Amino acid sequence: MTALLATLGGRYYTGADVFAAEQEHIFENMWFCAVRSSDLALPGKFKKVQVGRESVLLVRGRDGLLRAFLNVCRHRGAQLCTESEGEVKRTLRCPYHSWTYALDGKLVAAPNIGTLTDGAGAPIDRYAYGLVPVALTEWLGYAWVCLSDTPPPFDDVIGEATRTLGDADTINRYGIGGLDVGHRVVYDVAANWKLIVENFMECYHCSSIHPELVGVLPEFARGVAAQANVGLGAEFGTEVAGFTVDGAAGFDRLPGITDDQDRRYYAITVKPTVFINLVPDHVIFHRMFPMSVDRTIVECDWLYTGDVVASERDVSASVELFHRVNLQDFDACERTQPAMSSRAYRDGGVLVPAEHHLAEFHHWVVSRLATSV
Amino acid sequence: MTALLATLGGRYYTGADVFAAEQEHIFENMWFCAVRSSDLALPGKFKKVQVGRESVLLVRGRDGLLRAFLNVCRHRGAQLCTESEGEVKRTLRCPYHSWTYALDGKLVAAPNIGTLTDGAGAPIDRYAYGLVPVALTEWLGYAWVCLSDTPPPFDDVIGEATRTLGDADTINRYGIGGLDVGHRVVYDVAANWKLIVENFMECYHCSSIHPELVGVLPEFARGVAAQANVGLGAEFGTEVAGFTVDGAAGFDRLPGITDDQDRRYYAITVKPTVFINLVPDHVIFHRMFPMSVDRTIVECDWLYTGDVVASERDVSASVELFHRVNLQDFDACERTQPAMSSRAYRDGGVLVPAEHHLAEFHHWVVSRLATSV
Amino acid sequence: MTALLATLGGRYYTGADVFAAEQEHIFENMWFCAVRSSDLALPGKFKKVQVGRESVLLVRGRDGLLRAFLNVCRHRGAQLCTESEGEVKRTLRCPYHSWTYALDGKLVAAPNIGTLTDGAGAPIDRYAYGLVPVALTEWLGYAWVCLSDTPPPFDDVIGEATRTLGDADTINRYGIGGLDVGHRVVYDVAANWKLIVENFMECYHCSSIHPELVGVLPEFARGVAAQANVGLGAEFGTEVAGFTVDGAAGFDRLPGITDDQDRRYYAITVKPTVFINLVPDHVIFHRMFPMSVDRTIVECDWLYTGDVVASERDVSASVELFHRVNLQDFDACERTQPAMSSRAYRDGGVLVPAEHHLAEFHHWVVSRLATSV
Repeated sequence: MTALLATLGGRYYTGADVFAAEQEHIFENMWFCAVRSSDLALPGKFKKVQVGRESVLLVRGRDGLLRAFLNVCRHRGAQLCTESEGEVKRTLRCPYHSWTYALDGKLVAAPNIGTLTDGAGAPIDRYAYGLVPVALTEWLGYAWVCLSDTPPPFDDVIGEATRTLGDADTINRYGIGGLDVGHRVVYDVAANWKLIVENFMECYHCSSIHPELVGVLPEFARGVAAQANVGLGAEFGTEVAGFTVDGAAGFDRLPGITDDQDRRYYAITVKPTVFINLVPDHVIFHRMFPMSVDRTIVECDWLYTGDVVASERDVSASVELFHRVNLQDFDACERTQPAMSSRAYRDGGVLVPAEHHLAEFHHWVVSRLATSV
Repeated sequence: MTALLATLGGRYYTGADVFAAEQEHIFENMWFCAVRSSDLALPGKFKKVQVGRESVLLVRGRDGLLRAFLNVCRHRGAQLCTESEGEVKRTLRCPYHSWTYALDGKLVAAPNIGTLTDGAGAPIDRYAYGLVPVALTEWLGYAWVCLSDTPPPFDDVIGEATRTLGDADTINRYGIGGLDVGHRVVYDVAANWKLIVENFMECYHCSSIHPELVGVLPEFARGVAAQANVGLGAEFGTEVAGFTVDGAAGFDRLPGITDDQDRRYYAITVKPTVFINLVPDHVIFHRMFPMSVDRTIVECDWLYTGDVVASERDVSASVELFHRVNLQDFDACERTQPAMSSRAYRDGGVLVPAEHHLAEFHHWVVSRLATSV
Repeated sequence: MTALLATLGGRYYTGADVFAAEQEHIFENMWFCAVRSSDLALPGKFKKVQVGRESVLLVRGRDGLLRAFLNVCRHRGAQLCTESEGEVKRTLRCPYHSWTYALDGKLVAAPNIGTLTDGAGAPIDRYAYGLVPVALTEWLGYAWVCLSDTPPPFDDVIGEATRTLGDADTINRYGIGGLDVGHRVVYDVAANWKLIVENFMECYHCSSIHPELVGVLPEFARGVAAQANVGLGAEFGTEVAGFTVDGAAGFDRLPGITDDQDRRYYAITVKPTVFINLVPDHVIFHRMFPMSVDRTIVECDWLYTGDVVASERDVSASVELFHRVNLQDFDACERTQPAMSSRAYRDGGVLVPAEHHLAEFHHWVVSRLATSV
């Protein structure tokens, strides 16, 4: 038996300096899961996403490739797009002075463009004055972007996501990239993003606030986090037919998964801002967008096979289960945020044994910020 | 005749650094009048109060004692109570992970509590992981709390409150602790708390803004602060029957007071945040809650004998008098706050002779903050 | 041909430190155009104006002179006037303690004023305790104020305004001081004041966002700023009869202007916060009030001869033209402000040749702030 470990001190959840350092060293420096690729299925479709302090524009080119750019005109800095999403034909045109960019970022037109020259009198380089590109990789059907000039290997992301399951192939069997979005809910949570991560990582609270989830996964009543038991997942109750709010049957199991994966729930945290929940017939995928030290937008997708979505089958019984879990969790986080500034939490709270793996997350945060906070 | 004294400079009323220092060295370090004890008459009744930067929970135990705690769960820091007041049976239970505390603060239950051990493997100390206690003393029927680990002697509070009257027994004769709350108004004032103190301490403004008060206390028209004349109080006008908005008769005089105290109004300032107004048949008691450098909540109680309150006699004529005074004063303070940032007030304004005692308050503030601002 | 010049870096448009320095070194240190003198035509009329961080009170005396004071009572700092404008008879009386000032600022009354003495026991100097005066000069029918203790020569203002036209008499021929306000619109713009200045100074955006203006002034479609061509102005289109939204005829040309000035539009920037637009039959006069780093109030007057205004002739066709230009410009500025914090604008954007004169404005800003940012 070990003693209770301490959590991070309260200032990590309230300090403007800590959040600024997180923006610089975490959100703007790591791979950040931005949009579901299928949201931008057609050429010319674009979407604007907040990554750290930056407004990033994702747009699909005429060549079918998805690209990301800073949402800023290179001329005098007007925002190219002020709408959150939309569609253009062949170019992105800044409405202020009509500088116009191809969907690969190249500057293709501007008033009096012939008069724009470099120091030597030669025409300007149309890519040098094109939109500022942002690194982008697609995985699991999502576009992940990285604002760093030297992005870390994307294999780090894949490695972290698959390590939890003990096997790199396990997650692939769910075929997440080929699933369709059956439902999406966007939550605006008045809490620091780390409280949401910590909440997702432990199940000591499950018996207190998640009656429906515990109804489906009875072992969660024991208060031991499933994520600590690598690769095992949590087993459905014997009376439970599916991962639904009332335990009724769901849909056919996803074609690729094994018998071992049937009737089990797996939860994966991909730092900094992604949670993946795997069940036999669907996947629940969370992306966080930290907006300020005490506000986080969470976008949650429920993913099903194309058959289920195309046939418009009723997904509400499965959606309702995790939607309730989300509301219960975010309510707990919002109740916690205000106390982070108390002298009672100056040196943090404590972790019970079932939460000890949260200390790894805390060490990781501290090490990312080591040079600046 | 003396020259005009200077007031504090404007930054004392606008500086975020000054307000932070006041929170630390004044509100969180002195005895702070928090609640009327009778608001929490029954076991299990609780109330949440803002003291400096802390949310403090006051709760009456099964043993009848009133106690105060920081409103923070010791486990992962969720706020125990989010409602401003309420009632529980025997325990305070954190809704996040169900850590549960007795009304004396002891940790009495938690999921898997048997697994919680200290470094040596022994069960944890249930008080060491109990709610963080806050010092509490009851006086005049109010609970005063102190967040300091080493609270100053409470006799300092009593001494200051009674010194104004020249005699420690004078205030006791009003039997304030035994009175009932006949009416309460909560004011949200867009002004620094010190402007409200200064306003209360002088009567040079009375002839300008308090026609009803001057109608009852004609000597206030002279513009000389009653508080400067220790122990005398201000005498009712000869035509005035009671301390009411129109001078009509009030109620029977409080049983303990002397003939000297009859037909007189006494005003007492108890630093940092309490004003007490004594008149023959009732007491008006102000508590301030400084929320930010330019916002102060003021809670004002009108206290009468139990007979008056129980018989539901009409108290509106006395309530109306000081309610108007409050509105007139707070309006003046709100008109003053914005000018505190002007270069015209960089070195402060001036005090006329009838306001010279305000300089003592200014010196006191400066000395409390001496080490930090 | 020259290379593209860089603009100011983004922090100049977003930094609280930069805006604070601009308040101190620009708005509170230079001549600042505050009110149209005719708005305060009668003795006792007053208006409250925000200049930098100060609330300044402009009031016309019984002697017919316009004066400016800090809007702060010398006693305890209450704001003298909380209304934005109004009228008094002979004095300004502070409602808090009734200190009362003549319209020339002298302290003329206060309760117990006889007891107010200097250190030597002599009565206080009624001007030394009078309202704090602010320097004021009238020019072009506007009152310009300067908060500095040592205002710069007002000839600097006149020099800058007239230098653009190449001739000190040119502007005088429009007789701006004698015109009447035919219409006024107040805009609340969510953008830094310098974005608004830069927008006004260049016409490279005209073809993109100002169809009505280009309809009247076809040469603006070329995207070359008229202001760069000293003294020439921009010529009306051959089909255009007047400076109106549809090019229809306006009013008789102003009596003083020359044939050269007829059928021409001139634009003048008077730093820091004034734009003047001259057309044959009216004048459009902008005053900016920078409220915060990302918010600017702009007050725009349309000035016509007294005949036009007195006869209540319909001015809507000329008002509508520049009102649309204003809305188009301020929309562009509001679209630009959010991108100023992007890493893409850390070192600024670029200036095309037709905007190169903006670099002078940038150098001027940098030099004004040189000692502090």
